[in-house]
Amino acid sequence: MSRYLAICSYDGTNFLGFQKQLEGRTVQNVLEDALSQLLNKETLITASGRTDAKVHALAQPFHFDCDKDIDLDKFRYSLNRVLPKDIHISSLNKVEDDFHARINAKEKHYRYIVNVGESNPFEINYVYDLNRNLDLESMIKASLLLIGEHNFMNFTSKEEDFKGFVRNIRNITIVKQNNKIIFDFYGDGFMRYMIRMIVGTLIEIGLGKINDSFIKENIDTTKRSIISYKAPGNGLYLVEVTY
Amino acid sequence: MSRYLAICSYDGTNFLGFQKQLEGRTVQNVLEDALSQLLNKETLITASGRTDAKVHALAQPFHFDCDKDIDLDKFRYSLNRVLPKDIHISSLNKVEDDFHARINAKEKHYRYIVNVGESNPFEINYVYDLNRNLDLESMIKASLLLIGEHNFMNFTSKEEDFKGFVRNIRNITIVKQNNKIIFDFYGDGFMRYMIRMIVGTLIEIGLGKINDSFIKENIDTTKRSIISYKAPGNGLYLVEVTY
Repeated sequence: MSRYLAICSYDGTNFLGFQKQLEGRTVQNVLEDALSQLLNKETLITASGRTDAKVHALAQPFHFDCDKDIDLDKFRYSLNRVLPKDIHISSLNKVEDDFHARINAKEKHYRYIVNVGESNPFEINYVYDLNRNLDLESMIKASLLLIGEHNFMNFTSKEEDFKGFVRNIRNITIVKQNNKIIFDFYGDGFMRYMIRMIVGTLIEIGLGKINDSFIKENIDTTKRSIISYKAPGNGLYLVEVTY
Repeated sequence: MSRYLAICSYDGTNFLGFQKQLEGRTVQNVLEDALSQLLNKETLITASGRTDAKVHALAQPFHFDCDKDIDLDKFRYSLNRVLPKDIHISSLNKVEDDFHARINAKEKHYRYIVNVGESNPFEINYVYDLNRNLDLESMIKASLLLIGEHNFMNFTSKEEDFKGFVRNIRNITIVKQNNKIIFDFYGDGFMRYMIRMIVGTLIEIGLGKINDSFIKENIDTTKRSIISYKAPGNGLYLVEVTY
């Protein structure tokens, strides 16, 4: 039995998310079906983490076990032939038997893209099409409050989390490129909806509807009151996972 | 009664093409529905020409008549609010009453994009995903045979054409950018499937399967024998129409 680490990219538009479901098209279902078909044996995968419906991945790592000896180049080629075109395996490597795609992840990098200019029909699935100006400086200033180790209990939909609600956001960068605002998040891990809720909050700040005090009231608090802002999934990308 | 010229862009992925149909989602249906709704009156449009299913447009001009006095900026804004996000009106202007979006078109510019590298899940609807190397020099050499005024009877599916089968291709450029081969066509007009059949033929030449003689046998001939190569619609873009 050997363990393999694959990196895949996917366009999340036509997926109900990463995690396997009994019905409906998910990334995990499609990957496990393709692997099981090629290996002639039910094969399960473990990814670095989940992504929600419509969320994209430029590089999502996952591991799987196989008792056959795999020719890496040939197998990757065959896998891409079997997979639908909205998922692509960009690399495949043998790893130590105790490697774990989720547990060993040291840092995750997510990106969120907001279009503040005119709509572009070719980008509707790939950006949050806000079409309104955002004040960059106030969003950058507010984002500094979120960097570091904080309790993000109110920035996730989860009722509970076995690791608790503390996460360490190592950095957030916010830049404007042409008519896009690009948010980059680097951290040890992010809870469900956490980035979309943070982006949703920063957008409200960028629109001048709320200010920094909203963030101060909602992090490192013991009072559970899940925030109501959440940017849509189609603007979010899992960019890279570092081991 | 005044005549207006609008320019729209659309992602052709989820359209059955431009031309109105009794059933099924077409660009013309969607545009006429939106205009009729806003103007409270059945409003028909005339475009520079049709595009097929999956084919995209960066700038498709169309004209329509209206007996109301339109505030151009406000109306364009309202129209974009009513239209689905995969069509966008980028400009709207009043024109002379005898302006005609199809008849007055002087030149059309189409682009075709082929991916010769690895698949990218985010581009599946926007390029022809060939994943094979093409010999650029042999395609450029063959394309020179097509430039100028020729009878393209075998490069269209049309059984007949009221203007005949002679068209003037003013220029063809073929360049490689990273892993994409980009074909640009400039001409007075193109018949149905003409560009896709030309690209399909040039790809066969680029793969070394046929050579220049195939083109020589199939242009300026009186023997009807429609060629069997046709590149898929999703790699084709209407880039610009000049008046």
